[in-house]
Amino acid sequence: MTTEKRYEAFLALAREIYDLERAEELLSWDQQTYMPPKGAGARASQLGTLAGLRHDLLVGSRMADLLAGLDEREGGGLDEDARVNVREIRRLHDRERKVPTELVKELARLQSLSHEAWVPARKGSNFGAFAPWLEKVLRAKLLIADAIGFAGSRYDALLDEFEPGATASEIARVFDRLKERLVPFAERVLEESRSAPGPIKGDYPIAAQEKLCRRLAEMIGFDMEAGRIDISAHPFTMGNLHDVRFTNRYDEHDLSSGIFGALHEGGHALYEQGYDPAHAGTPRAAYASLGIHESQSRMWENFVGRSRPFWMHALPILKEYFPSAAGIGLDEWHRNVNRAEASLIRVEADEVTYNLHILLRFEIEKELAEGRLSVRDLPGVWNDKMRSYLGIEPPDDARGVLQDIHWSMGLLGYFPTYALGNLYAAQFYRAARRAIPGLEEGFSRGEFAPLLTWLRKEIHTRGRTYPSGELARVVTGEPLDSSCFMDYLEEKHGGMRAA
Amino acid sequence: MTTEKRYEAFLALAREIYDLERAEELLSWDQQTYMPPKGAGARASQLGTLAGLRHDLLVGSRMADLLAGLDEREGGGLDEDARVNVREIRRLHDRERKVPTELVKELARLQSLSHEAWVPARKGSNFGAFAPWLEKVLRAKLLIADAIGFAGSRYDALLDEFEPGATASEIARVFDRLKERLVPFAERVLEESRSAPGPIKGDYPIAAQEKLCRRLAEMIGFDMEAGRIDISAHPFTMGNLHDVRFTNRYDEHDLSSGIFGALHEGGHALYEQGYDPAHAGTPRAAYASLGIHESQSRMWENFVGRSRPFWMHALPILKEYFPSAAGIGLDEWHRNVNRAEASLIRVEADEVTYNLHILLRFEIEKELAEGRLSVRDLPGVWNDKMRSYLGIEPPDDARGVLQDIHWSMGLLGYFPTYALGNLYAAQFYRAARRAIPGLEEGFSRGEFAPLLTWLRKEIHTRGRTYPSGELARVVTGEPLDSSCFMDYLEEKHGGMRAA
Repeated sequence: MTTEKRYEAFLALAREIYDLERAEELLSWDQQTYMPPKGAGARASQLGTLAGLRHDLLVGSRMADLLAGLDEREGGGLDEDARVNVREIRRLHDRERKVPTELVKELARLQSLSHEAWVPARKGSNFGAFAPWLEKVLRAKLLIADAIGFAGSRYDALLDEFEPGATASEIARVFDRLKERLVPFAERVLEESRSAPGPIKGDYPIAAQEKLCRRLAEMIGFDMEAGRIDISAHPFTMGNLHDVRFTNRYDEHDLSSGIFGALHEGGHALYEQGYDPAHAGTPRAAYASLGIHESQSRMWENFVGRSRPFWMHALPILKEYFPSAAGIGLDEWHRNVNRAEASLIRVEADEVTYNLHILLRFEIEKELAEGRLSVRDLPGVWNDKMRSYLGIEPPDDARGVLQDIHWSMGLLGYFPTYALGNLYAAQFYRAARRAIPGLEEGFSRGEFAPLLTWLRKEIHTRGRTYPSGELARVVTGEPLDSSCFMDYLEEKHGGMRAA
Repeated sequence: MTTEKRYEAFLALAREIYDLERAEELLSWDQQTYMPPKGAGARASQLGTLAGLRHDLLVGSRMADLLAGLDEREGGGLDEDARVNVREIRRLHDRERKVPTELVKELARLQSLSHEAWVPARKGSNFGAFAPWLEKVLRAKLLIADAIGFAGSRYDALLDEFEPGATASEIARVFDRLKERLVPFAERVLEESRSAPGPIKGDYPIAAQEKLCRRLAEMIGFDMEAGRIDISAHPFTMGNLHDVRFTNRYDEHDLSSGIFGALHEGGHALYEQGYDPAHAGTPRAAYASLGIHESQSRMWENFVGRSRPFWMHALPILKEYFPSAAGIGLDEWHRNVNRAEASLIRVEADEVTYNLHILLRFEIEKELAEGRLSVRDLPGVWNDKMRSYLGIEPPDDARGVLQDIHWSMGLLGYFPTYALGNLYAAQFYRAARRAIPGLEEGFSRGEFAPLLTWLRKEIHTRGRTYPSGELARVVTGEPLDSSCFMDYLEEKHGGMRAA
């Protein structure tokens, strides 16, 4: 077989794997949006079957044979894009073939059932009802980690799924430097915020919030002909290119949850709509890592969406949907959406305290993975750490250890990517500001296309060409570091004090 | 391997095939309800991939080996339920293995793309834009028919997919007998109806119609915890047991479309929710044939839902949702929902003329399959037959040859099952009326459970134990025949004249 023919056959098989993954994604999306309650058992079985078949295609002899004859090194006869595809599929193939199919199917089934157990457990703040499921999921994940293998920490094998190449020790190093400046800074800001006005509350019908959020998403560039917005208990984004969907949730008395949920998920969605369609169905048109993904959502949520210029344009739009908000002034609103407060829920945390929520989770996951913490001790450890980092304690597990969907879905090793995303976002945003004259002035006139165009060129269309750390270096000229993020925070909160 | 172990492995594989089929079904449901417009291309590819994998599992060597060692004849060591499962999977295996996987994938892709082409073609009444797709779909279906093989007509191979064992000549014989009584009867009823009052029109907000239809569906026994109701261009039902969804469409000025759509699809949905859950994922918990399926929808739509006792109970409920309908009397409404009229659209046709729409399609499909009619001649033939059967001619193809979704989805050989369903429904309904004392009096008090319980026992929980003709014989003691249906029609329309 010629290299060309072989690569063609490889691509066809890669696209079958991709199609299965898209089908699984739709089944999960449906489970969280429209599936009738009694459908959970059958859905778990379906997801298990699809995951098993996908695993078989990825690690099977057909793929192994094709990969054996393809060389992704320069001079191996493949063009640059093809080399990326072969490298990335080979990486997955090499990792996944170490995991028995039965374990893959078992995990997929467990994820679905455990998610179903988590929903009522969180609602009833009943950790005991969720713990046995989490134990099963953890056990399966650790068996997978052991099958994959690792050099340093067992946690490395879990991280690799979400942030390829990242290690627990490297992340700990970056987070330690972050902690040095963030902890005292957060203490100061939280101290100052105690005398600041409380959040702006009101009555905001959810149907109108949905319309506003759609408007804001379209305003920053989300293509509704190639996407949807729905409601789910926990917001998420799925799909890519021509079918990208995100979900949101709304608080009848507070607009923040809906608006920043939409800008956050909208940021994820813009990344997914931004790949090069010529490479659809291959790693060349897929996100570099979840840290990079999160940099996109945090950029639109915080760096753009919590800026004063953004609200110069968007506050009058908000008032179209909520005439009761007519009296709110720009500065008052800008302070409102940037309030810092020690709070219980990660997804509602402000920019200053957000990373503290992640440090807590990173430390817990590492201990779980390394066998130094057991599931039944989680609520106690969680609450201790909340007291130590944020000075508050969850009154119940629903607002504590049960708040996040991730562990119920088997996503162990995922949380650190949120903090990495914040750090990458700060570095990318500084680079964008340097590259685009009058960037923020543009926001005040509703001009968001220059930023999106820059992100498309520098990040989105590059797909998985570079691993996350290298991508940051290519785009910004600098390695991953927390100083840029801290500079941004200090400048912003200094500015608000001065205003 | 013992028979027991072998049967277990066979069941596990059968359930994987079932899971894939459910996933495909959800992807199609999504395509018709919530998918963003630009998602069609990717969806076609996903459906193609899943169909190909499912085909491979069904016809592959693993299934062939398992089947080779299982004997579904009595005395073969399997219990009665297991014999049904082996017989049915063997039947599919034997048929599908004759069809090359590439053709299966090609058809799945074509179905999805052709459906996408049909939607705007119908909207713009542009048969020319749809014709090339229909030609491709037809060509693929005929290649499949030839691969499967047939004794009499090439159309037999197409029918077999929807009504196992049915033949074109047998259906023609039943339909001919139907035609003998129906055509003169319809002429008389249509003549009388010319002097009858027109349909009751009004302004009926769609949100309220959705609520009413949900109420009616629950009233006849649809379990909303195990199902959903959504909106699509063409109503359909999907799923089974614990996740059964139907769609509906609404006319702002006429309640009939929504109400009878809901009762019709609700009837399908009750069948799907009614299988024996102990056999989930196997043919033992699947519908006997599409003709039997249609008998359930037509029973609830017409025999129940267009009866006077039904509306004695339901008309006051309707008025709760539409106070503007307060003045409508029971007899007036009963006549309204039983108006007969020569009309263009099959799904909106009354009970009297409905089967004429099917005779037309049956004749056309048979000619297409037997190569005596080409796609480009369809609009002309369609319009000629409409004139001949119903005395009217479509003013455009949107209300003529383009009206149905079926051909765009590759469903050639499906239409006859609608008329078979009407005939089966009449036979089943007569048997139910004999078995359940005071059946219709019960309707007038809102008691529908006795009929549903009878249907569950006699039909639903039997799943695929018997082929359709045999099932009718087991339940009613009689073979398929049109006389029972004609008796019912004559009695009803005689009764209304007398009222």
